[in-house]
Parts: sequence; structure tokens; C-alpha cells
Amino acid sequence: MIGAMLHINGKPTVHFSCKSNLDRPSHLPPKPTAVKMTTTTTITTTPPPTILQPYWASLQADIEAHLKHVMPYKDPLVVFEPMHHLVFSAPRTTVPALCLAACELLSGHRRQAMAAASALLLLLAANHTHEQIPLSTKPKPKSKPMMSFRAFTPGIELMTGDGIIPFGFELLSESHDLARDNSDQILRVILEISRAVGSEGLIDAQYKKNLLSRSDGRESCHVERIMEIMEKDEGGLHACGAACGAILGGGNEEEIEKLRKFGFYVGMIQGMVSEGLWEEVEVVRDLAFKELQYFKDNNRDADAISSFIIHV
Amino acid sequence: MIGAMLHINGKPTVHFSCKSNLDRPSHLPPKPTAVKMTTTTTITTTPPPTILQPYWASLQADIEAHLKHVMPYKDPLVVFEPMHHLVFSAPRTTVPALCLAACELLSGHRRQAMAAASALLLLLAANHTHEQIPLSTKPKPKSKPMMSFRAFTPGIELMTGDGIIPFGFELLSESHDLARDNSDQILRVILEISRAVGSEGLIDAQYKKNLLSRSDGRESCHVERIMEIMEKDEGGLHACGAACGAILGGGNEEEIEKLRKFGFYVGMIQGMVSEGLWEEVEVVRDLAFKELQYFKDNNRDADAISSFIIHV
Repeated sequence: MIGAMLHINGKPTVHFSCKSNLDRPSHLPPKPTAVKMTTTTTITTTPPPTILQPYWASLQADIEAHLKHVMPYKDPLVVFEPMHHLVFSAPRTTVPALCLAACELLSGHRRQAMAAASALLLLLAANHTHEQIPLSTKPKPKSKPMMSFRAFTPGIELMTGDGIIPFGFELLSESHDLARDNSDQILRVILEISRAVGSEGLIDAQYKKNLLSRSDGRESCHVERIMEIMEKDEGGLHACGAACGAILGGGNEEEIEKLRKFGFYVGMIQGMVSEGLWEEVEVVRDLAFKELQYFKDNNRDADAISSFIIHV
Repeated sequence: MIGAMLHINGKPTVHFSCKSNLDRPSHLPPKPTAVKMTTTTTITTTPPPTILQPYWASLQADIEAHLKHVMPYKDPLVVFEPMHHLVFSAPRTTVPALCLAACELLSGHRRQAMAAASALLLLLAANHTHEQIPLSTKPKPKSKPMMSFRAFTPGIELMTGDGIIPFGFELLSESHDLARDNSDQILRVILEISRAVGSEGLIDAQYKKNLLSRSDGRESCHVERIMEIMEKDEGGLHACGAACGAILGGGNEEEIEKLRKFGFYVGMIQGMVSEGLWEEVEVVRDLAFKELQYFKDNNRDADAISSFIIHV
């Protein structure tokens, strides 16, 4: 065990020292000392594992159906056609579905969290779209060269991403339901999401990822840097998704924070798996199950949401 | 008079037929039949006219001071330094200040609308930042060549813009004040702003502007196209700014819609002035004053906000 779970300001944080493979148990595959970054955001390149399929697929299908309903092909087609294409062609992540799953765990109906899940899907698709724009100063991918085929010009991709982002917030603010008096919940969710995707969240992770991809593995504590990025990327985004679902499912503060931690672990596990950090996965998976135990102890059915924990 | 003001679905819309200069009064400068688009968004290149200075300057100074307070130089500096630079170096517009002015017209305190004004400034700065990113497929500016000096790389500009946008929504959601129970107002403002800057608002205008800049004035109804763009760009954004200020100033529906129309006219006048559409300016200025008359009739002091109507 080379890592230790620390809780700083209430937020779970995984820290790893830069040790060699010497004290690694022999039954585990060798731990990479200098892990190469994948060419695109790891969160968007990790396909949802097979074990998630039944529950995740049901949630994801509902989110996509909802988005097709609220984002019809309409005028101006020159704007909505690329919007459709770029939203639905972006790699799927488990973040939006986890938002619905957290809401359902607390006996909420998934439609209560549908706007938040849709907004998360939109914002991650916009981020992916912008990440793919070829700019001369961006570091070139090493293992996966950029495909030459592009459905739209970089200018359209830039503008479309810029249109998708406010549309996510538009959906959220529209989900205000006078009958349910949920405006405080929605404002809190807008705050959670804007922070998770913003300058201290996903954007910070992407900046650091760009820096790291330039360092070419020469940095002394490369794995630590990767973990820092993962905490705001996969970890932070899944934490946000689960917390938003908990808020909209009517969770109390303890439930919201338990689900935030659970989401963080779910995201970290995905990131660790994609980076081949096998030993750390085992530790974090135990922590994720511990968070779910709280809900089981309170007579909640946590089986469905536990499928978000990847087994390797 | 070559134009006619139409009201479609309650939204004021200016329509112009493609007539020649033949029936233009001799005391007016020749009306351009094919107006050239300026190289960047007209709204961001139009400096606030001198006549606005005292009131506008006071409002703008307060907004910038607020933004410097809520967006300090802090870690990660690599993220916040370009954010600061790009927010405060973007051309100033009258949209955020008009938001505060509308709030004050209704006897609200300008701090009630400060988060909305700040969010508007941030979102327009992000839009300007992204508009300046050099992309090989974007039409080249004709009259004003792109300056070769850039403070940051296009990659940083792209990411920083993507960080500024959610920060605008973060400020809005944070302005939720339990004591004032203003969550419904804030959600309505988030909806207004996300629509105004989104795919059916500013982004649609920019897409059309790009198309128009490629047509090189050959299109038969070039002025009509420019007016359509202006309705979503300068017109739509000022309409949004004024409506948000009215909502946060506690305005009733009639006051909000009157101020929305006033803002629309204020923006259209700015756009028309920058395009040299002098005769149309006179018509729209009269309409703007008519909207303010309603407030004067209801014992509101409309002198300060009337300074937003440009006199030429």
C-alpha cells in the first residue's frame, strides 16, 4: 500500500508518495513509475465498464431521450445541427447517470434530477468539443494522433461549445418548479456544477494536464501530479454529479456529503483503472463501499448505485 | 423613414426594407446600401459615448471593483492570472451598467443587481476572448488586421474563457440571499442571461455575422441581415441587462417588459450608430424615450438611465 487517504477540509483526497516498485506485493502488476497521460481527457475516453451496463444504460438512455426532447432540431438549423451532433457524439461518461442514481438512492424520482444530469452531460460535451479544437500551441497527442476527419470547422466547434454551456444552465434554471418549491435546491446545484467545471475544477485539471503532457514523464513525482489532476477531473466531476443528485433527491447534509465522497471514489477508481494504478483501486473501492454502507444501515437499497464501482 | 417598428410576440423588432438612398431626406448623410461589418463584435468595439460617462462610469467602476473583490489573484495563479487579464482587458460595454441602472430606476440598490451585472461582464468578456482566438477557418478581418501581440496562447485563451463562463453562473447562484428570499428572482435572471448569450442569442448572431463577413456585401438585403444580427447582439444583450436589473430591483411584469424594450432600443441605437444607420437611430431613440415616459408618469426619476440613449 503506497497511498494514504487524507481528508482535508472535509474533502477526501488521495495522496501518494513517489516510491519504487520494490515494496509492491508480487501478486500485483508492476506499478508504473511514470504514467503517460492519455491523449484526451481520461474521463471521456474511459468507456463505462460492462458491469455498469444495465442500470447505467437505463439512466443514460433517459438522459439522452430528455435531451433530444428539450433540444429539438429547430431553427436556426445552422446552430442546432452541430449542437446535436457534438452533444451526442461526445464520449459518454458516468457522471450524469450517477446524478440520477444518487437521487434514486434517496427515493427521489429520477426526473427530479434530470435537468442536472442533462446539464452535466451538456457541459462535459462542450468541454470535450473545445478540447478537440486544433490549436497550434496545444501539445500534440503522442499515442493517438488527431483524426483528420472533422464534421465541423474549428470555428463552428468553438461557437457551438459556447452555445452548449449556457444551454446547460438554462435547463437548470427552467427546472424550477413552483409546486415543489425547489428553487433553493436548484441554485445550490448550479453552484456545485459551475464550480466543478470551472477554473478551480475541470479547467484547472486540464491546464495541469497540458503542462504534464509537455513534461514527457521527466517530472520526479509524475504519479502525484496525475492524482492531483484526477481529483478535479474524474473525482471532482463524479463527486459533483452524486452530490447534485442527492440535493435534488431531498437528501440531508449528511447524505449529500456521503454521496459526494462516494462519487469522488467512483471517479477516482475510473481514473486509476485507466492509468493502471491497480493497488490504489483496491483501497479506494473499499472506501466507496464504506460510504454506501451508511445508506444500507439506513434501509436504503444501495445495490443499483453500487454498480458504479468498477470491479477489475 | 425607411423602417417600421414591429412588435412580434411582444418583442420589439426593427424591420427595414432594402430601399435605395433616393427617398432619403437631404439633411441626412447617405445611407449605406451595403454596410460593411466591423471586424470584431460591434458591441465590444463601440466605446461608451462621452455623454454616458458620469453615470455609466460610476456603475462600471462599482462592477469592476466588485469583480476584483470576488476574483482575487489566488492559486492556481496559472489559471487566475489570465482570467484577470482577459476579463479586464476586454472592451467595455454598457450592458452590465444598464443592469444596475434599471435596478436603481426601480429604487433598488445597485448591489441587488451586482452579481447579475458582474456575470454579464464576465460572459461578454469570455465571448470576446473566444472570438479573438485565431482559427484557420475563421474569416480574416478585412479592415483591422489581427494584432500579432497576444498576452496568452490560444490554448490558454480557450481554457480561460471556458473557466470564466461558469464563474459568471457561480456568482449568480451565490447571490442567493436567504434573508431577502430572492431565489426565484435569481433563477429567472440565470434563465434570461443564459438565453441571451446562448445558441438562440449572441451565438446565433455571431454565426450570422461570420456568414455575412464572407458574403462581402454582395447579398441583396445586407442591411436587413445586419439588423437581424443587431437584434440578438447589441439589442438582445442590452434588453437582457435591463430586464435582469428590473427583476432584481423588484419590478412588476409591466416594469420588467418596459425596461426590456428600453434596453433593446439602447442596444439597437448603439449598433445603428456604429453602422452609420442615422435615420433609424432617430426613430428608435424616440421609442426609447417613450418607454422611459412610463416611469416618469409613475414618479420615477428616469434622468440617470436616459443617459444610456446615445445622442448623435
